[in-house]
Amino acid sequence: MAAAGPETALPPGSTIAILGGGQLGRMLGIAAAQLGFKCRVFADDMHAPAFDVAEGTFGPFDDLDALRTFAEGADVLTYEFENVPTLAAESLSELTIVRPNPAALAVAQDRLIEKQFMLDRGIPVTKFAAIDGPDDIAKPLAAFGGTGLLKTRRFGYDGKGQRLISTGSDPQSAWADIGGEPAILEARVPFDYEVSVILVRDVAGRTSAYDVPRNEHRDGILRRSVVPCGLDAKTQAEAIAIAARIAEDLDYIGVLAVELFVLPDTGGRIEERLFVNEIAPRVHNSGHWTMDACPADQFENHIRAIAGWPLAATERFVDIEMINIIGDEIGQWREIASNPDCRLHIYGKNEARPGRKMGHINRVLTRSS
Amino acid sequence: MAAAGPETALPPGSTIAILGGGQLGRMLGIAAAQLGFKCRVFADDMHAPAFDVAEGTFGPFDDLDALRTFAEGADVLTYEFENVPTLAAESLSELTIVRPNPAALAVAQDRLIEKQFMLDRGIPVTKFAAIDGPDDIAKPLAAFGGTGLLKTRRFGYDGKGQRLISTGSDPQSAWADIGGEPAILEARVPFDYEVSVILVRDVAGRTSAYDVPRNEHRDGILRRSVVPCGLDAKTQAEAIAIAARIAEDLDYIGVLAVELFVLPDTGGRIEERLFVNEIAPRVHNSGHWTMDACPADQFENHIRAIAGWPLAATERFVDIEMINIIGDEIGQWREIASNPDCRLHIYGKNEARPGRKMGHINRVLTRSS
Repeated sequence: MAAAGPETALPPGSTIAILGGGQLGRMLGIAAAQLGFKCRVFADDMHAPAFDVAEGTFGPFDDLDALRTFAEGADVLTYEFENVPTLAAESLSELTIVRPNPAALAVAQDRLIEKQFMLDRGIPVTKFAAIDGPDDIAKPLAAFGGTGLLKTRRFGYDGKGQRLISTGSDPQSAWADIGGEPAILEARVPFDYEVSVILVRDVAGRTSAYDVPRNEHRDGILRRSVVPCGLDAKTQAEAIAIAARIAEDLDYIGVLAVELFVLPDTGGRIEERLFVNEIAPRVHNSGHWTMDACPADQFENHIRAIAGWPLAATERFVDIEMINIIGDEIGQWREIASNPDCRLHIYGKNEARPGRKMGHINRVLTRSS
Repeated sequence: MAAAGPETALPPGSTIAILGGGQLGRMLGIAAAQLGFKCRVFADDMHAPAFDVAEGTFGPFDDLDALRTFAEGADVLTYEFENVPTLAAESLSELTIVRPNPAALAVAQDRLIEKQFMLDRGIPVTKFAAIDGPDDIAKPLAAFGGTGLLKTRRFGYDGKGQRLISTGSDPQSAWADIGGEPAILEARVPFDYEVSVILVRDVAGRTSAYDVPRNEHRDGILRRSVVPCGLDAKTQAEAIAIAARIAEDLDYIGVLAVELFVLPDTGGRIEERLFVNEIAPRVHNSGHWTMDACPADQFENHIRAIAGWPLAATERFVDIEMINIIGDEIGQWREIASNPDCRLHIYGKNEARPGRKMGHINRVLTRSS
């Protein structure tokens, strides 16, 4: 389908279809409504959080007929997660405009393709090797210095589908641990911390990025993102330039998140301090602080981009930290709601399972002018 | 039903029922979702804007059975407009908590009761007289200096149901013009401009008010609200004190809007410069700027109040003007969306009828520290 230019911006009242009905779909749905769009959401959970704020369709993501019925008549289709089957996305692009385009999905949902994509463009990533069975592990493991991360190529998130191995580990059991699926082995990166770039690119190819947050994880799950991240302006600009290059090479439309490892500053070249960890072709948990620190948040800018609208400003007017509310921490809503510095966002999930993201807090640290 | 204290704050996941599905209901629904509440909306328009973001029930407001079915099982019920039949609201309070309480409706929906309520409390209002037929007009008209505003007691909004008359006018035709309904005659107030107080009161009786906007009308419809309003701090505090007193006397919970006329400063007492024009027992068009100028907007604070939560901060961090997008002005969405100083809010109405509020712009004037 031909790319739409600014002259084909979707008018208010147009219909946006979203694949995936979690908190990201919910917040995208709210952003779409605030700009006057109609919104429909497809999810494989009957109690999907996004169903509260948009017209919901319940079905499995491998039911192509259901997906096609869902996409029919929508003016643009987008997704809140990267594990939409690429073939499905391609099939749906016969029916409506799909943004970001399915090629971005293909890169983001397979760690091997993703790493190779970066390598081909000279974008720094850690050393890696394809692992198709337990026998493939020993050789690269030795080359990586005796330790590495074994990760499934597909469907990994929040630390699932990965484990650390070292020379003494049993390759058979490590392979079994991750489900015996096609995998990659990554050399460990001795990084100081992780940052992410939340970048948005519009139909005309213009990009804009929010300030770079620093991300802290706990038990493999994002715990906290804080801006400013402490990185000097030059290195921050380099991180944003990397993300912009990825977006351009993917002919990307919408919000793209790029996670990067920051290595200790040893006085060397900037490019040697940043390694791309992974990309997410969607709005991202580490961008949730934009809801309370910027004129327009990542959700609005994603909707603007996919609707062919001009982007809204990404400037930041406060220092802020985002803290995820995980599992039964949601029980503390009273205390959080009483704290005047905390902006509270709750996702409407009815069961507080361990490790489940139930909401987030944006806590203003200082109000800058 | 017993008033709930802070200890009975509704947890996230509770259900909020809203009577009325226009843009106010829509923005309340979004605010409720952002705090993790379920939301249902009753409206007499099958294409009610709020139905896009909440579970909708379509029916007429005089169908008490339908209203009772709708309210059943909700944890709290509120409304986006003041013309909900008082009897219906009272009946629903047998089924669930109704906030603000129906007594506030009774005062706000009848201009005579409203004016008398103010007068009884020494709150300044213009001179007025009850008009039950054309023959009642001449005497008060003469007492008011020969001109006055004839207004229906009930169901007037956006300048409908009122007309200016003076000694030469034919009372019969004036009476017919406003529909031949019970009315009041108001003396004209030689005011400089109109301001409004957007005040919120919680279950514990604590109040908080946003900065006072100055309101400009065109063809009887609010056109623009701007903050700061130009009023000195003392007079602004007096306006807020009047609103707080009204809220307290009504045992009010939620957002209350109080419109006031500001008379020219002739060096007299502050209390002689402010006249209450009318009150609205709900979120208010002149408070829409709070969406882009404050940590929490009027919609969130209304939801917090009716849910028994503590209030969020009402401080303002930018100078801002709100401009309504009326009728076919919505066709300018492209230009507005491209203006980096404009935050655009569109209500999802499918028909741009003359005089219909289609959305609003919040335009940042200066960013203060």
